[in-house]
Amino acid sequence: VSPEVRHLSIRTERKVPRLGVMLVGWGGNNGSTFTATLLANRYNIHWESKRGQHSPNWYGSLTQCSTARLGLDHEGCDVHVPLCELLPMVDPNTIEVDGWDISSLNLAEAMERAKVLEPELKKKLRPYLEKMKPRPSIYFPQYIASNQATRADHILQGTTSEMLETIRRDIREMKERVDKVIVVWTANTERFCEILEGINDSADNLLKSIESESSHISPSTLFAVAAILEQCTFINGSPQNTFVPGCEQLAQMKGVFIAGDDFKTGQTKIKSVLADFLVNAGIKPVAIASYNHLGNNDGVNLSAPPQFKSKEVSKSNVIDDIVAANPVLYKEGEKVDHIVVIKYVPYVGDSKRAMDEYTSEILMGGLNTIVVHNTCEDSLLAVPVILDLVVLAELCSRITFKGAADKDYKPFSNILSILGYLCKAPLVQKGAPVVNALTKQRACIENILKACIGLPPEHHMGLDYKLTSIWKDKYANCNGLLNTHHS
Amino acid sequence: VSPEVRHLSIRTERKVPRLGVMLVGWGGNNGSTFTATLLANRYNIHWESKRGQHSPNWYGSLTQCSTARLGLDHEGCDVHVPLCELLPMVDPNTIEVDGWDISSLNLAEAMERAKVLEPELKKKLRPYLEKMKPRPSIYFPQYIASNQATRADHILQGTTSEMLETIRRDIREMKERVDKVIVVWTANTERFCEILEGINDSADNLLKSIESESSHISPSTLFAVAAILEQCTFINGSPQNTFVPGCEQLAQMKGVFIAGDDFKTGQTKIKSVLADFLVNAGIKPVAIASYNHLGNNDGVNLSAPPQFKSKEVSKSNVIDDIVAANPVLYKEGEKVDHIVVIKYVPYVGDSKRAMDEYTSEILMGGLNTIVVHNTCEDSLLAVPVILDLVVLAELCSRITFKGAADKDYKPFSNILSILGYLCKAPLVQKGAPVVNALTKQRACIENILKACIGLPPEHHMGLDYKLTSIWKDKYANCNGLLNTHHS
Amino acid sequence: VSPEVRHLSIRTERKVPRLGVMLVGWGGNNGSTFTATLLANRYNIHWESKRGQHSPNWYGSLTQCSTARLGLDHEGCDVHVPLCELLPMVDPNTIEVDGWDISSLNLAEAMERAKVLEPELKKKLRPYLEKMKPRPSIYFPQYIASNQATRADHILQGTTSEMLETIRRDIREMKERVDKVIVVWTANTERFCEILEGINDSADNLLKSIESESSHISPSTLFAVAAILEQCTFINGSPQNTFVPGCEQLAQMKGVFIAGDDFKTGQTKIKSVLADFLVNAGIKPVAIASYNHLGNNDGVNLSAPPQFKSKEVSKSNVIDDIVAANPVLYKEGEKVDHIVVIKYVPYVGDSKRAMDEYTSEILMGGLNTIVVHNTCEDSLLAVPVILDLVVLAELCSRITFKGAADKDYKPFSNILSILGYLCKAPLVQKGAPVVNALTKQRACIENILKACIGLPPEHHMGLDYKLTSIWKDKYANCNGLLNTHHS
Amino acid sequence: VSPEVRHLSIRTERKVPRLGVMLVGWGGNNGSTFTATLLANRYNIHWESKRGQHSPNWYGSLTQCSTARLGLDHEGCDVHVPLCELLPMVDPNTIEVDGWDISSLNLAEAMERAKVLEPELKKKLRPYLEKMKPRPSIYFPQYIASNQATRADHILQGTTSEMLETIRRDIREMKERVDKVIVVWTANTERFCEILEGINDSADNLLKSIESESSHISPSTLFAVAAILEQCTFINGSPQNTFVPGCEQLAQMKGVFIAGDDFKTGQTKIKSVLADFLVNAGIKPVAIASYNHLGNNDGVNLSAPPQFKSKEVSKSNVIDDIVAANPVLYKEGEKVDHIVVIKYVPYVGDSKRAMDEYTSEILMGGLNTIVVHNTCEDSLLAVPVILDLVVLAELCSRITFKGAADKDYKPFSNILSILGYLCKAPLVQKGAPVVNALTKQRACIENILKACIGLPPEHHMGLDYKLTSIWKDKYANCNGLLNTHHS
Repeated sequence: VSPEVRHLSIRTERKVPRLGVMLVGWGGNNGSTFTATLLANRYNIHWESKRGQHSPNWYGSLTQCSTARLGLDHEGCDVHVPLCELLPMVDPNTIEVDGWDISSLNLAEAMERAKVLEPELKKKLRPYLEKMKPRPSIYFPQYIASNQATRADHILQGTTSEMLETIRRDIREMKERVDKVIVVWTANTERFCEILEGINDSADNLLKSIESESSHISPSTLFAVAAILEQCTFINGSPQNTFVPGCEQLAQMKGVFIAGDDFKTGQTKIKSVLADFLVNAGIKPVAIASYNHLGNNDGVNLSAPPQFKSKEVSKSNVIDDIVAANPVLYKEGEKVDHIVVIKYVPYVGDSKRAMDEYTSEILMGGLNTIVVHNTCEDSLLAVPVILDLVVLAELCSRITFKGAADKDYKPFSNILSILGYLCKAPLVQKGAPVVNALTKQRACIENILKACIGLPPEHHMGLDYKLTSIWKDKYANCNGLLNTHHS
Repeated sequence: VSPEVRHLSIRTERKVPRLGVMLVGWGGNNGSTFTATLLANRYNIHWESKRGQHSPNWYGSLTQCSTARLGLDHEGCDVHVPLCELLPMVDPNTIEVDGWDISSLNLAEAMERAKVLEPELKKKLRPYLEKMKPRPSIYFPQYIASNQATRADHILQGTTSEMLETIRRDIREMKERVDKVIVVWTANTERFCEILEGINDSADNLLKSIESESSHISPSTLFAVAAILEQCTFINGSPQNTFVPGCEQLAQMKGVFIAGDDFKTGQTKIKSVLADFLVNAGIKPVAIASYNHLGNNDGVNLSAPPQFKSKEVSKSNVIDDIVAANPVLYKEGEKVDHIVVIKYVPYVGDSKRAMDEYTSEILMGGLNTIVVHNTCEDSLLAVPVILDLVVLAELCSRITFKGAADKDYKPFSNILSILGYLCKAPLVQKGAPVVNALTKQRACIENILKACIGLPPEHHMGLDYKLTSIWKDKYANCNGLLNTHHS
Repeated sequence: VSPEVRHLSIRTERKVPRLGVMLVGWGGNNGSTFTATLLANRYNIHWESKRGQHSPNWYGSLTQCSTARLGLDHEGCDVHVPLCELLPMVDPNTIEVDGWDISSLNLAEAMERAKVLEPELKKKLRPYLEKMKPRPSIYFPQYIASNQATRADHILQGTTSEMLETIRRDIREMKERVDKVIVVWTANTERFCEILEGINDSADNLLKSIESESSHISPSTLFAVAAILEQCTFINGSPQNTFVPGCEQLAQMKGVFIAGDDFKTGQTKIKSVLADFLVNAGIKPVAIASYNHLGNNDGVNLSAPPQFKSKEVSKSNVIDDIVAANPVLYKEGEKVDHIVVIKYVPYVGDSKRAMDEYTSEILMGGLNTIVVHNTCEDSLLAVPVILDLVVLAELCSRITFKGAADKDYKPFSNILSILGYLCKAPLVQKGAPVVNALTKQRACIENILKACIGLPPEHHMGLDYKLTSIWKDKYANCNGLLNTHHS
Repeated sequence: VSPEVRHLSIRTERKVPRLGVMLVGWGGNNGSTFTATLLANRYNIHWESKRGQHSPNWYGSLTQCSTARLGLDHEGCDVHVPLCELLPMVDPNTIEVDGWDISSLNLAEAMERAKVLEPELKKKLRPYLEKMKPRPSIYFPQYIASNQATRADHILQGTTSEMLETIRRDIREMKERVDKVIVVWTANTERFCEILEGINDSADNLLKSIESESSHISPSTLFAVAAILEQCTFINGSPQNTFVPGCEQLAQMKGVFIAGDDFKTGQTKIKSVLADFLVNAGIKPVAIASYNHLGNNDGVNLSAPPQFKSKEVSKSNVIDDIVAANPVLYKEGEKVDHIVVIKYVPYVGDSKRAMDEYTSEILMGGLNTIVVHNTCEDSLLAVPVILDLVVLAELCSRITFKGAADKDYKPFSNILSILGYLCKAPLVQKGAPVVNALTKQRACIENILKACIGLPPEHHMGLDYKLTSIWKDKYANCNGLLNTHHS
């Protein structure tokens, strides 16, 4: 084992642009709740529920509501700041929203349909939201569940190329209102696309297939292509393989950031915590049964097998890296019994329920069984994730790096795997390891942000206190970069 | 924010001594199961349960069964090794056990009483265990529940000073059989001791109080004093304040390591994971209700209010540092509604049950409720924690540090706060922050061990893959110490 | 075994009186929600929550929303009617409410404090409720938790006798507005009263003790005495022993109905179902751990040990009759490990949580473990129970019986044990068995109501269908009284 | 409403025959555990588990371990006796077992494979069980999951008619050893059979189809036909439609008892308790999500969609009668959102887990959520159900009835719907209502048994105590048949 020291300079453009976010599926529960939350925060709208008075917040947002340790204050106490204060980031109150939907409801109507927010809040938001109407969207019935047909009253007509052109024009319109645009797919889960030679396996073939009206191009891929061609970051919040090889290649060629897949919110998020905890404690999970039910339109759509398949795959791999990292507990190739079920139960609406059972082997043939019932309000957990994705993706576009041997500062590679914390199935560079363990994903974000301001990574050793016999005086900053040498 | 670079040299004595572990409460469920597990592993004893054939293991042990990433192999894949292979550590198979108990049962009988292991395993272990008989122990009825009186048939007589002397002689006897002895309190939870001026507030006063037969000295403090006077590391696995100021001072004066309090195993461990996860995700826990019941002798003893009080305090502070680290979610002084209940339910025996409900505020007045039912086999979770405590404490005694300005290598300060991962209420140096968040505690151990072999801390940034545009070639070791500079 | 046939004539007065209900603790969560629900139903008030539009209902009421099988219709199908249609009962919409409280808030303010109902509903109810103000009540600090002192701003002054007289005058005032008055204690749980010779052991002594200002008379007993002396039925909805022997005797002497104790709503109700189910299935519950937490004023008050003690006793006996009825599974004197815990967790408010674990022995040493988490909205479950208690108690006062040898029709004996379904600790005649099993309690009510209209009890044998070879034709009414003879 | 009194004489043959039980799927987990339990009880075999010493029992059996109230003893106390003492029933210790299996393992090997019983118990039972070897069985691959092929090493060859003849001969052989034989299908769940005109729609067509080798006859139907033709009661313990119309007709023509379908053990049993409780309390269940997983061979087989379909149907209708009986809560045609999921999770083996969530509407728009996690040891719950089925079915064959107008005593009609308590999808006479509510099903059995000894049904009115003013003296037997008249 011989470590190697490399030097890296990081530069962060400090001017924060006006950001426009365009949502595909704007009128869905996520889209309408995201928009409502932005406005409630911007206009500081208060409301009453049966539990009392409420004020708007961004609870559940990594950037707005979680903190990092900056160092010590003059009295030797830890100073924690919200992540969004480590570096200049977009203020949510300044974000402009726009988007598309296959349903023609305006955002006020969409918010009513969603049944996510309290009556008084909805009433106060209505004047703002009823002026917002999604642009018509792309509807290819074969990609989403047939039960979505009744919603699809607001769809683009014409050839695929014409649709692509319309979407690009929509984006360009938005660009005139703001400095930078990010496009987020928060629409229905589509079925998986087959990867076909000559069709979607290269950027070139993909563009040709669009022109030739191939039926193998999904709406989400079309939106991604439109965003890439307009030099806009595209984030995929659903599990399907939007980023077919041709699409990934196109993004690389154009130097456009892409990120995904599938917002990580409730059950999967907690599983990537618990499984990691257990394995890191030397305990061996052997069976994980995960059941979900929900009653919103996501649930309706997922009740169709091909769409569920996309979701199942996305949710299934979450423990793979955790298992692979412990060859003491798991022999090569050994698998955990892991099942994932999602069912549609209309009554519960947006109040998604997750029920999990973790069975683990402990000492000497013993078993530990952990049963979790989690009432995850679906959209209320997803909306801050959407915010974090766009805020962090925007920030990433202002960070550049220069290695010791380099002449110029260069950006992140175009697949933003740093956003893995926010995604169930993190998209990574070819050949790169997929990290699902949540604490590692969070450390990645936190430590990179700290590196941008010249702080060393958090190592949690706390040696100042453990070695008081050596360091008599308390140092002003125990975040000091520690160079250890062994002998 | 201005970090400061300090250099530190670390030296680890590589010769591993023969280790003797002396358990106070040897015949309890933890003590007997620990001994049985050691022997089953040493002699590779197999057994059958209704689920099939079993072989011995150390599942649940951080040092034996969890891994750390060492670097990359020649094919660029991560290499993970068990923590116990990072540095030379005591092999569990070589540990000698001895101890005291207020009950006269030999270890075979104690194992039967515990009802923790399978019949066939117990049968095979009996020949070894029936030769092991605890030494008589100290029984001061006012410190433990009155229901323990029936067990107390094997107790030291005489003055307190005589008892102290007997314990010291016992330790010296053990020292003749091995190279190093560690004493672990795994006996009953005692009631808290009042800290009294002139009695237990200084090393001197403490020793005088022992001589003068003060009723304010608990058995656990007496055992700690005996160990310290014999230069043996003492670990407190129960929640009471064994380490009264006088005891702590004595340890410091004698340069003896102490650690505690209260083995962290089931409910508290998972709580220090979940609460940390939630707060770090920007979600605000507002109410945590924690219920436990168990039916072993620990449960009997804790059914008395003063003993339960010790436990309740130990379990209550586990989220304090997590809350304090997030001033965005929690205003200064704001508290989580947090209750902890432990009940005695004889039927469940050693199969402790923990039921928790976490209520958290999420976006826009929403609530997230997580309900956990955890079947924690009490002793099976505690035994590997005991092993880790003695193995790591022994290792710590072989590590020394030298700062840039120092002449000599010096040891850890004598309170081993590095063992916080294994303790519900981590004992720390005066003035040092208490860390309860489990992932931070684990990172502390892992990164210090790595530092001992010259590896930098794990930062999880994965920049090799995120910056492929810069570093064309894959480096052989992405663990390389990264010096980042911002501009 | 030789059964004996007895004949009994039952007469039910069909004229339904105007009913007045007087609540002690009117401004509490139960009292204010009961009043709000009555009014919302009477005025058919609709409201919106985030889940959509709501109309008022009496869900959770046995009399209004559960059904009994009446017989078969012309097509041979079962006909089910709500219990309240079996016999003439008071229509909830006609009930007048009045009451007392130690807090001076009017009912609109009390409803706000309760945080039970939705904002829009509260707004619509406010005009009605703000006119309703509780009468001052009796506050003896030693009977309820000291934390209630801050609420007690509206209390009667003077001697105990004067207070009694005031309460009696209040009742008489109410009687002028309606035909019949029932008084219900829905106030705080008091601590238990000692039964003392010469103080509260006979009606006479009790009345004398009141005159002599004895400190051994609780407020709830005083209210009961006032109601009894005014010939009004008194129902005790809390667990304390309001009905000391002197009080019980007084009710008997005056021929006044009394009933109680402690509304049976959430955890205990389901326990009296599940334990009964298990034992009746030949499965042996061996350990039941029941944990509760709530954050309303009931929770505050119960956080004091003497008040909790009353509740614990009330909740503890619920499985005794079930166990006693199965001498195959339980040897004489054998007990189930049964614990009950109630904790105050402010944040959850009126949304009481119950967590239970049932461990049962099944075949051949196997164990069955049932874990239940129950989100019981405390007042929303209690209010329909209060309604059922007053509606059924009123009905009972119109039913009379005549045995074959009797000359006159006579009423129920004065302890209304028929209301056991609605009470955690059913009050019964001296010597009578206490039935806690919920299905038996419900059958009792249903079969007595049916008997009042000449229908035989429900026997569930369904012989019409099982013996089709005998009875070729389908009978018009399979409820027919079956006289079976064996040979 | 006008009840009608009918008189019925019941005669029970008191001589109990030697009973032989033939199990299809003898070597499965149910079959092997049933046999092992019979033998352990017969030979009073004790064993040790880690929890201590165990003796054999029939916990979970309605007939052996649950009780009925017989009346009062001389001191006025209730006398409860086990159901099996109400009437002469087969003693389990005298039952002879035989059967068929597609796997050739002897019963000792089958017991090992099942992993249900403790090692010491298995060791002691082995000498008895290894002599027992299933007869070869019928394997039509299209009826069960393809994953069963590897087990199928012990199957009948030849034409369908030849197989039928072999099975009949097997039964006749058994009949020589005992007085009466009952055949129970406890083998794999088959896919549903289509009902086809001319094939299986009449007894005649069914027999012809067997002769003509039709592929539309399932193995379970063939076994049923064999049993019927041999005048043996046939019970179907799996969910498939074994009793196609032709089979039902054949049983009727031959006057042979049939019963089924699908043993009711864990999740469905408790659901038929909880849903009934809620609706009977006036609470409205609106969504029930039921998840199961198990790891035994039943789970393997059910992982194939057609087999799961049979199970899903069987489990889905359990609340239908409960909902239909309450037109106050449910409008005509209104349905509860009800989903049932079963998954195969190998690790948990026979330790089936059921996780249910019940969401109910309560007062004024409130919601009650009950979450249940149930660790149901699959075979340990099923085996006593099998015992009850054969014991009660045998008893039923000795009971005859005579109406007032009849000349002769006649038996139960040939579909034993009285066994509904033990079946998930109770088979009933055409036109008869299906009762799923567990308490009604139990009352049916208990009251019929009581009627057989001349006792009136249990009405739970307890009037003796409620009317003490009338009946001064305590009657010797409050079970007295109560004739009530209203006026």
